[in-house]
Amino acid sequence: MQQALARVLGLPAPPALTVAGRTDAGVHARGQVAHADVPAERWQEAAGAARRRLASVLPGDVRVRAIAAAPPGFDARFSALWRRYSYRVCDDPAGADPLRRHDTLWYPRQVDVARMNQAAAACLGEHDFAAFCRRRDGATTTVRELLRLEWARVAPGVAVATVVADAFCHNMVRSLVGAMLSVGDGRRPAGWPAELLAARARDSAVMVVASHGLCLEEVAYPPDAGLAARARATRRLRPAVT
Amino acid sequence: MQQALARVLGLPAPPALTVAGRTDAGVHARGQVAHADVPAERWQEAAGAARRRLASVLPGDVRVRAIAAAPPGFDARFSALWRRYSYRVCDDPAGADPLRRHDTLWYPRQVDVARMNQAAAACLGEHDFAAFCRRRDGATTTVRELLRLEWARVAPGVAVATVVADAFCHNMVRSLVGAMLSVGDGRRPAGWPAELLAARARDSAVMVVASHGLCLEEVAYPPDAGLAARARATRRLRPAVT
Repeated sequence: MQQALARVLGLPAPPALTVAGRTDAGVHARGQVAHADVPAERWQEAAGAARRRLASVLPGDVRVRAIAAAPPGFDARFSALWRRYSYRVCDDPAGADPLRRHDTLWYPRQVDVARMNQAAAACLGEHDFAAFCRRRDGATTTVRELLRLEWARVAPGVAVATVVADAFCHNMVRSLVGAMLSVGDGRRPAGWPAELLAARARDSAVMVVASHGLCLEEVAYPPDAGLAARARATRRLRPAVT
Repeated sequence: MQQALARVLGLPAPPALTVAGRTDAGVHARGQVAHADVPAERWQEAAGAARRRLASVLPGDVRVRAIAAAPPGFDARFSALWRRYSYRVCDDPAGADPLRRHDTLWYPRQVDVARMNQAAAACLGEHDFAAFCRRRDGATTTVRELLRLEWARVAPGVAVATVVADAFCHNMVRSLVGAMLSVGDGRRPAGWPAELLAARARDSAVMVVASHGLCLEEVAYPPDAGLAARARATRRLRPAVT
């Protein structure tokens, strides 16, 4: 993306891109947001054709849905209020649509969505999510606020989790989904994920599900007037927030 | 599939599979139909768990949606009345959803669906489709009956062609779609595909679009009592029908 921007805007070097969701390798993103600082005159010249020209330069697995000048104080990463992810699972032991295999985990044991939602509800709120995080350099805290975590059966044999938090630690969604699938198929009690959470330590019994079922769907920001204040507050609380 | 059947049914050798649509490499199929002759006692033992066991043996890009004993006289290929294909095109010059790139052609010129439908209507009926076919060994005739050919815009930037015929020659759908896209983007007049058809000879001006946008969606058969008669009639008319 950085190289494509340099080419389309005619910059001498690729601009640094700041992204809202620093997802693991293999995770999809329909709603990624990023910003870059570029010279105003370059942008004004290229703005009208930028999206079309980026599409002709980028590989087929990356597309820009919208591009615009950012309001003052905007930071794609630190101004964000929350991120929404989805995780798509096929639990039909005989099934899994081959045409959706690139964004769907095949979990060949049927899961009980109501039971997973019971487990999920007990994890909502602000907690130390150390049990579901892989520490990485620079991460100073694993406290996050989980705003929404719920499962829906969107088609026979297909269940989708919606997960919203102010921010996520490394591997957090994939670990939460793994713990809930162990509840959904009956191997663990519905209270197990909340017990893990309370222990505040990573537990090897939690399965980290594959990255390809996960998709960053949306990143939300405050109204323009609140962007800079939000960025300052986030940087203070979580210097290495992801 | 033949090897998976041998394994699941405990056969000494893979059974020969006869498929309804002998699609080109890279073409998808949500509605493929196939038959194989297997010993009745092996089938009776394995029938209940066959679909689930096949899913555990097959690679992720192949799944069996339903499996059953066939009625007398059934031939997956020769008993078929018609085949329905879809072809999915993204014509947004700035777009193309990366998550659908495996089953969507990106055609970065906007197309006029009404104009393509005008071109399509003139090709309906029984014709010699030599202009849209690549001859292959054993094909004795290129006469086919085109029962339906129409485009619909299913989402902004996405147009899907539905194509139904009694049977198709090699490359026929991909050549028809290519000719219609040249009409849709304004480079050819709406009467061009019908003119090509009337010439009854392959024309190098026809673009054969990529295989990955094409999907075999459905194969239709007569009621059980008519299966054997239909197979006899098809074999007589088109010994190498595809």
